[in-house]
Amino acid sequence: MPSRVIDLNADLGEGVGDDPAMLELVTSANVACGFHAGTPSELLSTCREAVAAGVRIGAQVSYPDLAGFGRRFMDVAPADLLADLTYQIGALRALAESVGGAVEYVKPHGALYNAIVHHTVQAGAVVDAVASAGLPLMCLPGSEAERLALDAGLGVIREAFADRGYTAAGTLVPRSEPGALVTDPDAVAARVVDLVQTGRILAVDGSTVEVSVDSVCLHGDTPGAVEHARRVRTALAAAGIGVRTR
Amino acid sequence: MPSRVIDLNADLGEGVGDDPAMLELVTSANVACGFHAGTPSELLSTCREAVAAGVRIGAQVSYPDLAGFGRRFMDVAPADLLADLTYQIGALRALAESVGGAVEYVKPHGALYNAIVHHTVQAGAVVDAVASAGLPLMCLPGSEAERLALDAGLGVIREAFADRGYTAAGTLVPRSEPGALVTDPDAVAARVVDLVQTGRILAVDGSTVEVSVDSVCLHGDTPGAVEHARRVRTALAAAGIGVRTR
Amino acid sequence: MPSRVIDLNADLGEGVGDDPAMLELVTSANVACGFHAGTPSELLSTCREAVAAGVRIGAQVSYPDLAGFGRRFMDVAPADLLADLTYQIGALRALAESVGGAVEYVKPHGALYNAIVHHTVQAGAVVDAVASAGLPLMCLPGSEAERLALDAGLGVIREAFADRGYTAAGTLVPRSEPGALVTDPDAVAARVVDLVQTGRILAVDGSTVEVSVDSVCLHGDTPGAVEHARRVRTALAAAGIGVRTR
Amino acid sequence: MPSRVIDLNADLGEGVGDDPAMLELVTSANVACGFHAGTPSELLSTCREAVAAGVRIGAQVSYPDLAGFGRRFMDVAPADLLADLTYQIGALRALAESVGGAVEYVKPHGALYNAIVHHTVQAGAVVDAVASAGLPLMCLPGSEAERLALDAGLGVIREAFADRGYTAAGTLVPRSEPGALVTDPDAVAARVVDLVQTGRILAVDGSTVEVSVDSVCLHGDTPGAVEHARRVRTALAAAGIGVRTR
Repeated sequence: MPSRVIDLNADLGEGVGDDPAMLELVTSANVACGFHAGTPSELLSTCREAVAAGVRIGAQVSYPDLAGFGRRFMDVAPADLLADLTYQIGALRALAESVGGAVEYVKPHGALYNAIVHHTVQAGAVVDAVASAGLPLMCLPGSEAERLALDAGLGVIREAFADRGYTAAGTLVPRSEPGALVTDPDAVAARVVDLVQTGRILAVDGSTVEVSVDSVCLHGDTPGAVEHARRVRTALAAAGIGVRTR
Repeated sequence: MPSRVIDLNADLGEGVGDDPAMLELVTSANVACGFHAGTPSELLSTCREAVAAGVRIGAQVSYPDLAGFGRRFMDVAPADLLADLTYQIGALRALAESVGGAVEYVKPHGALYNAIVHHTVQAGAVVDAVASAGLPLMCLPGSEAERLALDAGLGVIREAFADRGYTAAGTLVPRSEPGALVTDPDAVAARVVDLVQTGRILAVDGSTVEVSVDSVCLHGDTPGAVEHARRVRTALAAAGIGVRTR
Repeated sequence: MPSRVIDLNADLGEGVGDDPAMLELVTSANVACGFHAGTPSELLSTCREAVAAGVRIGAQVSYPDLAGFGRRFMDVAPADLLADLTYQIGALRALAESVGGAVEYVKPHGALYNAIVHHTVQAGAVVDAVASAGLPLMCLPGSEAERLALDAGLGVIREAFADRGYTAAGTLVPRSEPGALVTDPDAVAARVVDLVQTGRILAVDGSTVEVSVDSVCLHGDTPGAVEHARRVRTALAAAGIGVRTR
Repeated sequence: MPSRVIDLNADLGEGVGDDPAMLELVTSANVACGFHAGTPSELLSTCREAVAAGVRIGAQVSYPDLAGFGRRFMDVAPADLLADLTYQIGALRALAESVGGAVEYVKPHGALYNAIVHHTVQAGAVVDAVASAGLPLMCLPGSEAERLALDAGLGVIREAFADRGYTAAGTLVPRSEPGALVTDPDAVAARVVDLVQTGRILAVDGSTVEVSVDSVCLHGDTPGAVEHARRVRTALAAAGIGVRTR
């Protein structure tokens, strides 16, 4: 569905990247919850900055894997995963509320995000935790997580990736394959504009594929991330597309 | 102030002791929050059991010291301590609420409990965190924490220790000194009854000292803890003193 | 190959079970290394007790998963797993040597133990770490880990499980299937004697299967573990089988 | 004692700063051991780089405080501190040796470094751990740690700080007081040359004070650290002072 507005999100509070600069460019901040990164004190600062910048706060929940930055699949039982996520969401909520903010959505991080594209049991635990918190879930369109969230009556924030290649089936090209990453900043910006305007994106095989999108993820921890984000904003403005949460 | 009712509290969810048995004997459960003990999954189970038993849940917050079970003083800056405690209270709240319960008070654990008897700066950070959560603070009568909590308009749950000796000044006899522990179960039970009935306790020097008390702490992790707690309940019942939160 | 001597091993230093009692019954102690359980102080105590008891010390290495007690598969990259294991082996070695002991073998714990039965890449990383340490590997006969260890010229300590059922192929019956556990202490003891004397064990389908075994694992953390271990020792003695490291 | 050679050390493997650049400028690398920073995989990489650069490796041991980067005093009992440090030294040794290197000294980090200037009990535990490892201790001249290390017959590497102000008594000016930091790079370089040549340094009150020094600490994690280090090396070369371990 084409649109005239789009939400931009980025990962913050991870102790990497230029958080203040990104907060001027995005409308949603995925704030770490301490399980893959972030001390309570760092998370509180990030919440404070997000509130000051008028940026929506989401809880970026993770497997308990500080050493691996949450990037490694863990075979966590669903009851344990439910407890882990409830704990994290509650913790970030208290921090956000103590500085006048609120947690408004949940976005799984790293290996957990990837797992729940296909792993029905873990996706179910994530949906249970998010439902218990009464929040919408930010996830990949077409994923098991999206399907179960919709079944459960949850709000869903469908996410596209500005700098990732797509297959003809609308899934992301695996990082190990050619075309996984779009590195040219102008190409990235053009793809975002095109996606928002048409609801379609150019796949690696040259076909065009429909991709539902409520929010576009801008990576905040890569070199040039801020410049990258600036070009996307500029291109969206030039195309008359507003940037705000929806 | 003498009373006809008293609250009994114990530490639970720490992976030690017989939690189910203690939940039948106490009216308040100090549930660990993961910083000195307890995985989210264990804490969730403890909350579920407390709710089933009709026992009030308190957040037992700690320094971040899993290796030391929260028993070692840490020179944490007040801003960091505030964030640490806000994080823990929020996390436990979400777990408790997900099973139909609620966190109804905060009790600092171990070395933090002892520190805020005298450490004004850390006591201030604790009071800030508890005030931000809108909860009462369980603490030692006469402590800096109590003084600052009252100054801030917080509710205070004054706590006495069933098995600890008291000085003539109403403070606890340090563990390194004679008379620090009362080990005879019947003597412990008799002291609790006496304290609740008269508002006074026998000090180690033979004098009697006034001690304000809203709740009596029963240690849950010592050998014989359950039997200990049973005798206190029996003695309170025999004296016509009700056991409930106040 | 039938034998007149056998090694008995158990997991120790995990903060569960009756370590002193088990140290009188086993000849090899799998000592945790802090990644699934055990503080350095607890591990040092366990090493000291093992040295005093004349029990061989092995490093029980794990995924970095304190919250899950190392019982959850983690998709750790081989270079990271190699570093994790090298770190743990070195740490335990220093503790053991500081009390006059030595680490004499490596036994992977929990989910890692199970993973390297089939997971060639992780098994390779484990073998690399153990080879780098110049130690033998305790593992399941028939596993990928054993195969790669033999290929690398490593010493191998083949392990059987006293209380587990075996398939006709000589592998363990999965815990989710009938016959996975042998719970009768006398049956367990009889199976151990039979296995050591004949080199064969009765499988769940009634057939007998050859199982190479240098050491028999006695679980130290289950209720009745000590009594269990005592019966095995008594049965071995009655059969004239010596208990010692080989 | 004036000298014609000096050792330069910096903290590495902490995930901050430009480690490769610093490794070209220093002769000793204080490598974190995982208790205040660094995963085993990161520490292994740092060891590999140090070996490749021909830089001496020291174990930078810490309180167990990842959340606080080891910068907060912890009241750890001496037996526990001894175990913590033995664990860390052993872990880093195994990593260093697996890439053809060796741990050649121990340097306490952060709050522990500061504590053992005055805290006799903790200094004693540090000395016990370092003695058990058979290594020299890098420490502040005049500290309790130095005194106890000399009493125990340990080797001692006396350390000066290039960018810190000194009192007339030869101790560091506390960071909360004026003159604590020397920020001008040329002034820092001149002070290092002067100190090495004369064995004396200009104190904040204008007097000169004798300071024993075997190694000069260059901070690796501050902005401009690399440029800073380059100027010190250039100034030392201009003065004909060699840079190497002693």
